[in-house]
Amino acid sequence: MEKNLFIGVDVGGTKVAAGLVNDEGEIGSHLRVPMIANGSASDGLGAVLSAISELLGEGTRVRGIGVCSPGPLDPAAGIILNPPNLPCWRNFPLTDALRKAYAFLTANGVPVKVDNDANAAALAETRWGAARGYNNVFYATIGTGIGTGIVMHGKIYHGRTGSAGEGGHVSIDYRGPICGCGKPGCIEVLASGSAIARRAREKVASGRESLILELAGEKLPAVTGEVVGKAYAAGDALAREVLTESADMLALWLSNMIDLLDPEVIVIGGGAAALYGPFFGRLQERVPKLTVNPRAREVPIVAARYGADAGIAGGAALCT
Amino acid sequence: MEKNLFIGVDVGGTKVAAGLVNDEGEIGSHLRVPMIANGSASDGLGAVLSAISELLGEGTRVRGIGVCSPGPLDPAAGIILNPPNLPCWRNFPLTDALRKAYAFLTANGVPVKVDNDANAAALAETRWGAARGYNNVFYATIGTGIGTGIVMHGKIYHGRTGSAGEGGHVSIDYRGPICGCGKPGCIEVLASGSAIARRAREKVASGRESLILELAGEKLPAVTGEVVGKAYAAGDALAREVLTESADMLALWLSNMIDLLDPEVIVIGGGAAALYGPFFGRLQERVPKLTVNPRAREVPIVAARYGADAGIAGGAALCT
Repeated sequence: MEKNLFIGVDVGGTKVAAGLVNDEGEIGSHLRVPMIANGSASDGLGAVLSAISELLGEGTRVRGIGVCSPGPLDPAAGIILNPPNLPCWRNFPLTDALRKAYAFLTANGVPVKVDNDANAAALAETRWGAARGYNNVFYATIGTGIGTGIVMHGKIYHGRTGSAGEGGHVSIDYRGPICGCGKPGCIEVLASGSAIARRAREKVASGRESLILELAGEKLPAVTGEVVGKAYAAGDALAREVLTESADMLALWLSNMIDLLDPEVIVIGGGAAALYGPFFGRLQERVPKLTVNPRAREVPIVAARYGADAGIAGGAALCT
Repeated sequence: MEKNLFIGVDVGGTKVAAGLVNDEGEIGSHLRVPMIANGSASDGLGAVLSAISELLGEGTRVRGIGVCSPGPLDPAAGIILNPPNLPCWRNFPLTDALRKAYAFLTANGVPVKVDNDANAAALAETRWGAARGYNNVFYATIGTGIGTGIVMHGKIYHGRTGSAGEGGHVSIDYRGPICGCGKPGCIEVLASGSAIARRAREKVASGRESLILELAGEKLPAVTGEVVGKAYAAGDALAREVLTESADMLALWLSNMIDLLDPEVIVIGGGAAALYGPFFGRLQERVPKLTVNPRAREVPIVAARYGADAGIAGGAALCT
C-alpha cells in the first residue's frame, strides 16, 4: 500500500478492529484484538494501543489516528462518557491517553480523533463511499439497533454537546413499544434487526403459518433478522409482511429526516441493511409522498459502501 | 426612533404587516395593507410595495428590507414556489421584483431578503428575543399549524433546497390522523391549536361533561383552541386532559429534536403558544426523560419574545 495512510480503529464491546486506510478509503492490514468491556480502563486502552502499535510497526507513514467508540462521548474533548456497552471507559479521556502514547507522532502534527461509530461511518461514506461528492448527508446504520450520523457542509454535525444525530431514537410512535432508551416508538425499537425479529416472533407465536419457525430450527427464540431475511428470500408471506411493515416505518422516519434536514442523499448501512435491500425501490417511491419538501424525490436513497469495516473507515475519515 | 432601521414585512393570506425594526429588535411604525391571496401576482406585489414605500416615506435610513412569506419558497433565489395560502405567487421571483423596485437602495448595498415565516421568526428570536446569546436554536411557532425554524451557528439552516426545518411535519404517530400535508401523525395534526380544538370536540361529542361546550355557545363547531384555554383556566377537567395530552405529544416531539439536533435552547411562540403556557414546567421536566442525550436537561424551553409581530421582526432579522 501507499506510504500515506490513516489508522482507523473501531472499538466494540468484545473486540477492537483496526486497519490502515488510504486516500481512496481502501482498507488494508486488518487486525483484531480482544476487548474486555467490563475490565479496567487501562486494559481497554491497552487493547487499542496494541492494535495501533502493530499497524505502526509496519513502517508506514501515518497521517492520522482515528478511533470510533460506542457513545455517549464528547468528541470535542475526546472523552468517553458512560457507554452502556463499554463500562470500562466511564468518563475516560481517550484522546488525551492516545496523544500521550503517540507523542512522537502528535508532536509532528499527526491528528488523533475520537467520535462515535455512526458519526464516523457517515463521514467515511461521504469521503469515500456511497455519498461521495455530497456535502449534506443523512446516514443510518441498521443492525441490532439503529445509529445515525448527519454530515453538513462536509463535516459531522455534533450539536451543542456532541450528542446530535441520534436519529435512531427519533420516535414515530408515541403510543408504541418502549425502546431500550426508555422512549416509546423510537425507529430503533420498530425497524432495527432486533425489532424485525421481535415482530416476526410475535406473529409466529400468534399461530400464523410461515417458514420462519422451520428456518429457526422450530425454536421461537432462535428467530433473528437474518432468519426473516432467509424466509423472505424463499418467498414466505409472513416474512414479506414483516419486512414491508418495517420498510414503511423506515419510509415515514426518513421522510421526517428530509422535512427536517433536507439532505442531499440518504445512505443506509449496517448489518441488517441487507434485509432492506429488496425494499430500496419502495423507500424511494414512498418517501417523497410522505414529505412536504416539494423536491424530496430528488434525494437518492442508497446502500452504504462499507459493511463490517465501517468503523475502521470511519475512524480514518475522522482524520481527513 | 433611530436613523438606522430595518424594514420587516410579513406577508399573509389576507394582509401584509410591516414595520421598522431597530438594532434591539424593537418595532415601530406598524402598518397593515390588505392582501388578495388569489389575485394577480402584481396585485400581491403591489401590496408589499405600498407597505414598504410608506415606511420609506418616513425618511429613515434603511439598512435592509426583509420579507417573510408562507412557503414553500426558495430563499437563496428569492422565489416563492407554490404556497397553498398565497396562490397569486406561484413561482414568483419576489426578491428580484423588490430589488428592481428599490434599485436606488440596493445599488447602495442595502440587502433585500426573503424567507419563510418560521425561519425568519427563529432568527428574530436568536438576534433579539428569547434565544439571544445562543447560536443553535430550535424554534416552533404553534398556531393553526406548527412551523419550525432551525438556527445553526447563528444562521438559518436551509438544507439542500431551502425547505429544511419543516419540523411541524415530523410525525410522531405513524398510525395517527392524516395531516393536511398527507402524512400521518405530524405534530401539526396532533398538537397545533386546530388539533387541540379537534380533539376537544371529539371528546365533547362523545358525551363527556365539560365547560367547553358552554363556552362555545353550545355549538360544537365553535370550539377553538382559545375556548379550550378558557375552559382550562376555569378549572375544566376535560380541557386539562386535552392540553396535558397535547403537551405530552409536544414533549416527545421536542425530545426527537434534541436527540437529532442537540440545540442550545428551544423557543416556543405562535398564537396557540399561550395554551401551553401552564405546561412549560411539564415540558421542561418530561423532555429530558425522553432523550438519549445525557445533557438534555440543560436545554431551556422558553416562550418567544415576539407574538403577532414575529413576522415583522423576522423579516428585519433576515437583514442582520
